[in-house]
Amino acid sequence: MYFHALIPFKPVNPKTRLSSVLSQEEREEFARIMLEDVILAVRRTGCSATLLCTSKYECRDALVAIRKEGLNEAINWALPQFHCPALIIMSDLPMVTPGSLQRVISTKADMAIVPGLGGGTNVIFVKKPEKFHVEYYGFSFRRHLQIAEELELTVEIIDSMRMSTDVDEPADLVELMIHGHGNAREWLYEHGFSLSVEDGRVKVHRDGKEVV
Amino acid sequence: MYFHALIPFKPVNPKTRLSSVLSQEEREEFARIMLEDVILAVRRTGCSATLLCTSKYECRDALVAIRKEGLNEAINWALPQFHCPALIIMSDLPMVTPGSLQRVISTKADMAIVPGLGGGTNVIFVKKPEKFHVEYYGFSFRRHLQIAEELELTVEIIDSMRMSTDVDEPADLVELMIHGHGNAREWLYEHGFSLSVEDGRVKVHRDGKEVV
Repeated sequence: MYFHALIPFKPVNPKTRLSSVLSQEEREEFARIMLEDVILAVRRTGCSATLLCTSKYECRDALVAIRKEGLNEAINWALPQFHCPALIIMSDLPMVTPGSLQRVISTKADMAIVPGLGGGTNVIFVKKPEKFHVEYYGFSFRRHLQIAEELELTVEIIDSMRMSTDVDEPADLVELMIHGHGNAREWLYEHGFSLSVEDGRVKVHRDGKEVV
Repeated sequence: MYFHALIPFKPVNPKTRLSSVLSQEEREEFARIMLEDVILAVRRTGCSATLLCTSKYECRDALVAIRKEGLNEAINWALPQFHCPALIIMSDLPMVTPGSLQRVISTKADMAIVPGLGGGTNVIFVKKPEKFHVEYYGFSFRRHLQIAEELELTVEIIDSMRMSTDVDEPADLVELMIHGHGNAREWLYEHGFSLSVEDGRVKVHRDGKEVV
């Protein structure tokens, strides 16, 4: 099924909850590389993507729309312009694979949602996006189910650790370093991050110092 | 496909990392109810289960073997006795559903693994368990992949948030309260736990006091 992806992206000072382990310059580079892993997975399903960027950004593999407003306003500006199914996917999901995206876009329901850990929404696929709108932040998973119900849309909830785990905090790096396949995982190893086992638990170190 | 499930279970003083939010008596009751949700999902796939219990335990819906040794020793005592495929599943996965188990047991590979968040192993399905052995604790996900490789077994890794999220710490209660369908979720609500949204994040309260 052909769809077009919307990927919100903040190029400047992103991922501030990783500040304890990455400098601003590193966070900007790491966020860009996670985004590229997401774009690659989208393109490997045969579809194209538009980035909704909060500031100027160059990208070889996707269209770019610069939108200064908030996340919800930017997406809700874009959705009525769609004439094909829309995949709204966050840029901090570097564990996503073409196979996991296939599970989303092959839904028989009117839409599919992948919840994020902690009550958020990491991926929305909606076959007729013109009338849909999003409300991110807080308990957005529940809110998006309510919106679907109000619009009388059937929803499939996709059960995926790869897509439910967004990389926000240092603890999330563990999963990416274990299960990632793409460049974001490589970037961490190249920048001095490593895994070790201590007291029966997997820990993340950077340059020999424990960070998680 | 017929299989038999092995479910390790500690009836006395389990889930000590939940001590800050549950008394010992409550933890014992909650652990039992999570176990019952897991047994129900297993039975709904048409299969039976044996509990490997560290102390005396009565269970209407499963066989019980009392094994005083450690987790690995108990499972590795049981596996050579199998003449059918084995599903080794942890008792603290109350979000598991018959549908998610179907994804595991319908693998075309020699075995399937569901990793736990943080490098552990939450579910192992192995078609010829007689020669397999487990090594839980620490980075057991990697270790189980190595054991499979040494035995020249093909492995499918199942991507499931429901089965990767074991309930160990107070923060894990958020996912259970959002995504659970069974009695463990109900038990939390009946015992004063509730969800709220503050500062754009979903929080867990008990009797009005924030616990996560």
